[in-house]
Order: sequence, then structure tokens, then C-alpha cells
Amino acid sequence: MSEILKEVLNANEQYASDFGDKGRLPLPPARRFAILTCMDARLDPAKFAGLAEGDAHVIRNAGGRASDDAIRSLVISYKLLGTKEWFVIHHTDCGMELFTNEIIADLLEKSLDTAVYDGEWKDVGTTPGSSEGRKIDFLTIRNLAESVVEDVRKIRSHPLVPPYIPIYGYIYDVKTGRLAEVPQATEAGRASA
Amino acid sequence: MSEILKEVLNANEQYASDFGDKGRLPLPPARRFAILTCMDARLDPAKFAGLAEGDAHVIRNAGGRASDDAIRSLVISYKLLGTKEWFVIHHTDCGMELFTNEIIADLLEKSLDTAVYDGEWKDVGTTPGSSEGRKIDFLTIRNLAESVVEDVRKIRSHPLVPPYIPIYGYIYDVKTGRLAEVPQATEAGRASA
Repeated sequence: MSEILKEVLNANEQYASDFGDKGRLPLPPARRFAILTCMDARLDPAKFAGLAEGDAHVIRNAGGRASDDAIRSLVISYKLLGTKEWFVIHHTDCGMELFTNEIIADLLEKSLDTAVYDGEWKDVGTTPGSSEGRKIDFLTIRNLAESVVEDVRKIRSHPLVPPYIPIYGYIYDVKTGRLAEVPQATEAGRASA
Repeated sequence: MSEILKEVLNANEQYASDFGDKGRLPLPPARRFAILTCMDARLDPAKFAGLAEGDAHVIRNAGGRASDDAIRSLVISYKLLGTKEWFVIHHTDCGMELFTNEIIADLLEKSLDTAVYDGEWKDVGTTPGSSEGRKIDFLTIRNLAESVVEDVRKIRSHPLVPPYIPIYGYIYDVKTGRLAEVPQATEAGRASA
């Protein structure tokens, strides 16, 4: 068993040993909202947004992007589980700003090993690569505020999203832990009915 | 400003006011692993798996499914940010077990309002619906252990996933907070080089 697996299972054992009455929480989010944000390790949405277990849906992917899969999740979130307000939260120093589709497709073609970044990406891997990366839109980010606006707009204009759900656009600052509104995004995400 | 927005911003203010030295955490996950799990409000992966800020990537969607978007995120996670072990964690009492593609597509066609569940789904909404739901595979779950195995297999066999990354399959029990291995999944996710 790997060290990581041992550590995770030990931590889980501790968590479960003091689980209290959390086992009685119902399935639908008690506070009826959802957060879409990045998978970045420095972000803990429960902590930075004040969520207890049972409070809110949390959807995370690389960049916190409004991918088709994030929208699938948001549709399930409101239609079946009753969320009524949504947050799109990107963050400063995001890895998605450090590459393009072409860069990562090139790197993946060279090898399937982890690349090295020192101002630019270098690949010294030996595991044979694959050109499959050319088929993927990695949803990279050129401008943080713009990516928040774009994603809020994409969700707002989706035919399966009710007009009365407000969508708030924010950027989380990894240096301070603070959320800053992207007013243009929140404006674009305003409920219309 | 809505109550939810106020509460989230107040909680964030508190979090940021005691941020300590977390502002100096580097971008790549310190403990070099990633967790793919469900958006369910009752799950707090940082708590149930013992993650501090900066430790690990957390990817979440409806069901914790190995969607194309989750795989996009995992590829970025190892190729650019160096994760070396992955967990796929579904959970008991998952909403994804309570419907099918047909059920949700029917509900969405009736209205864009939240449906009611009392053993079966009912839609009493008045906001006009849309047939767009017919185009979406909602990745529902019929059998929890099988869905974990399926998703681990899908990731394992993806041409952009290196053979040496182990993928562990687990089910989180929302009644106890405990992780239980799905041995067949972990077996299917075993590193091969």
C-alpha cells in the first residue's frame, strides 16, 4: 500500500470516528446553492466559502470552467436537487494560464511523463507519448476576468438553465484567500425573471 | 444582495482574515495526488481524506464520473502538475441512482423548475421546458460498485494516462463518513509499469 493511500485511509478513519450526526443529512443541499471552481490544490471551497457538510454542491475541474460536464452537473443540481444560486469562481496564479492547447498537445505527444516548467515547458520524459491530446480542448485561460465572464455567459445562455437563477462571477486570490467579484460576470449572470 | 451571497462573502472575509502563510503555497499539489468525486453537498473531500490547502487536486462533478472533462482535468493534473496517484470515489445514497437519462429529459421538457421526488419524480413547474436534455448523457448510476469499476477502467485505458499511475476505487458511506474500497476497481486501476 502506498504512503498516500495509507495517509488518506488513516485520515478517513479519524474523520469517521467523530462523524456525529452528519450521517443523517439529507441528499439535497440545505443552503440551496452550487459553486463551480478549479481543482487547484490550494483552494478549499468549504473553507473559503464557509460550507458545512450538507450545505452546497461543489463542482470542480481544471480551471473551474463551464464545460459541458459542469453544465450537466449544474442542471442536475437545480432540476433534481433544488439549488437556486450559482457561483463561478476562478483564481489567481491558475495553471490554466500557463499553457495553450498546442503546448500541452505537443508535450503529450513527446511523452506521458510529467513535464517541467521553468518559464517554459520542457519534456524530458521517456514513456511514449500520444497524439490524442490534439483532440481535446483543454479550456485554457488567457485572461482570468474574461474567462469568468465567458463561463457565466455560457451557463446563462444555456437552454436548460432557468432565467431566475443568479450566477455570480468571482476570482479567488490564492495569496490572500479573498474572493473578488468580477462585476461584468455577475452582471451577465443576473437573473432575468 | 441575496442572503446566500452575503453569507458566503462574510465567511470568506473570516477565512481570509486568518490566512496565515497559505499565500505562499506553490501551484503543484504538495502530496502529488488527485481525487475525483461527486459534487454531493454531504461530501467534504478535504475533511474525509485529510487534505490541507495545497495538498491535492480535487475534481468533482455529478456522480464523480470519469467524464471527458474529468479526464481532461486528470491529464492536466499529472502532465503539468505532477500528480502520481488517483482516487475515484463515488458514494452511497447518490442522487445519480435516482433517475435515468429518459426521466431527466422528460422532466426538463416539462419545465425548467425543480422537480419533486417522493419515490418517483414529479414536475409541477411552470417555466417552459426544453428538449435539449435529450442530447445529454447524464452519466447516471445503476450500481455503485459497478460505476466505480467502469470509471477506473475508463481512466486506466485512456491513451493519455500513463500506465504507472495507480487508480484507487472507493465508495464513501454518507451514513458513516467511511471510505470502503471497491477491490475490483483498484485491481483494474493497478499500475502496470
